[in-house]
Amino acid sequence: MLKCFCGKESYIKVTYPKVKYLCKEHFIEYFENRVKRSIEKFKMLSKDEKILVPISGGKDSHAAAYILKKLGYDIELFHINLGISNFSEISLEKVKELSNFINAKLHIVNLKEITGKTIEDVKGKKCSICGITKRYLMNKFGYEHGFDTIVTGHNMDDELSFMLNNLLGWNIRYLAKHLPVLPAHDKFLKKVKIFYEIEEKYIKAYADALNIPYTTVKCKYAKKAITIRHREYLNKLEEEKPGIKYHFLYGYLKNRELFEVEKDFKFRECEICGMTSASKICSFCRVWRR
Amino acid sequence: MLKCFCGKESYIKVTYPKVKYLCKEHFIEYFENRVKRSIEKFKMLSKDEKILVPISGGKDSHAAAYILKKLGYDIELFHINLGISNFSEISLEKVKELSNFINAKLHIVNLKEITGKTIEDVKGKKCSICGITKRYLMNKFGYEHGFDTIVTGHNMDDELSFMLNNLLGWNIRYLAKHLPVLPAHDKFLKKVKIFYEIEEKYIKAYADALNIPYTTVKCKYAKKAITIRHREYLNKLEEEKPGIKYHFLYGYLKNRELFEVEKDFKFRECEICGMTSASKICSFCRVWRR
Repeated sequence: MLKCFCGKESYIKVTYPKVKYLCKEHFIEYFENRVKRSIEKFKMLSKDEKILVPISGGKDSHAAAYILKKLGYDIELFHINLGISNFSEISLEKVKELSNFINAKLHIVNLKEITGKTIEDVKGKKCSICGITKRYLMNKFGYEHGFDTIVTGHNMDDELSFMLNNLLGWNIRYLAKHLPVLPAHDKFLKKVKIFYEIEEKYIKAYADALNIPYTTVKCKYAKKAITIRHREYLNKLEEEKPGIKYHFLYGYLKNRELFEVEKDFKFRECEICGMTSASKICSFCRVWRR
Repeated sequence: MLKCFCGKESYIKVTYPKVKYLCKEHFIEYFENRVKRSIEKFKMLSKDEKILVPISGGKDSHAAAYILKKLGYDIELFHINLGISNFSEISLEKVKELSNFINAKLHIVNLKEITGKTIEDVKGKKCSICGITKRYLMNKFGYEHGFDTIVTGHNMDDELSFMLNNLLGWNIRYLAKHLPVLPAHDKFLKKVKIFYEIEEKYIKAYADALNIPYTTVKCKYAKKAITIRHREYLNKLEEEKPGIKYHFLYGYLKNRELFEVEKDFKFRECEICGMTSASKICSFCRVWRR
């Protein structure tokens, strides 16, 4: 039996920055220290900020909310009911459980009440529309209710698979944005990814170690996303060459100024909703209000 | 039975720029037209240049030599015997066959005669050393024998897998160099990749259609290269999303100035051999003469 340095049974093997076996308690400590280090290193958050944590029902956002609460940040939770059958009902149940579990206030909005439609009803690329919708609604809610910052559960694997996708397609504008902190501007709140340096598998292990409530039910539309392929491929490479994902991430951070092509870009207000937009009508209003 | 537009039996399905089935004769015409178009588009070659074509024994370099000869370019062949057992002997036989087949002069050099060692004898990363060695010896031979240009058989899959590898590792200096034509400077000859826009599978089909002699024996060291994984992955993506590889290539060409960080870099002469070098001692002399 593999053992932790303390002598107890090992719960998990961690590989970065060096290989070691850890028991449940020491893994929780390791995980929380890594997140604390990211928060300090990237100057992500301070204790006097009012933080909105959008939660989906899944492990990443739930672990983010849990750890922020544990570390003493001032957080409230936000959930969007997207109206996806066999998914939204279960998600809703889990976000309520989490809210009780960590004793944090939960705000729920319903897409159908806002737009008259669900994600199921809308035509076009579901994943792309869902992303636009979530980003818009969480920002609008946070902006209108006096929050300073939005913290999402995006993990390192999310970032890297999107980064690879944007490199394969040479989406230069998006390549500038794979950052742990996006500062506030106009009506956009500051956005922070506290799990920027954390692999997905460790977040799952952390949530499980602490019995944080979450659902593993996947959205039926997500299967088709090519970024899932990229994620699997990067994990295969990581197995063969440990450290390759971290190298990719930190190399990006070192070289990201290569992609800063739109420094002087001027945002405006959407003619329909008045929120900050890159064009006359914002993406949300283009999808839902035209 | 699938048929070519001429009514004959189909030899191959081509997918770019659009899907069609072609008989052997029309595939040969299609292939040669695409190579001719690359040569014109990137101003690769002119008929009055003296061209050295390094050939390895494999399909890519052999097809490159064949098509250049057929299109009326002034070419001579160059082969390096690397001294790799079960590989170099077979390769040597095939390059001699090709030389007879296309009636082109063949120059052969033997690594062991030059350095006292073979690739088998040298310590370190074989693939990297082999690359350094081949690039150095072909350039030196071409330079000393009055050639203007070196044409290699590197294909689109080679370029893309190396490009992906350099992106994952953020090797900015190398990322500037994935070009179809590298102009001559100092004692470096002009280098041209005539198959820059051609997928490997089509080169194989072309060589087979014309019975061009080549060997399929692979170097035993090549298996470990991570770029082979990248190549397989990119091909898997291409099957799912046809055009993704072309998009990646042309996106690179459109955005490559992002990586031009060393415009003013000054080259010098290697203190041992006198050839152009980035540092005091060139990579070849560092491997073989120290």
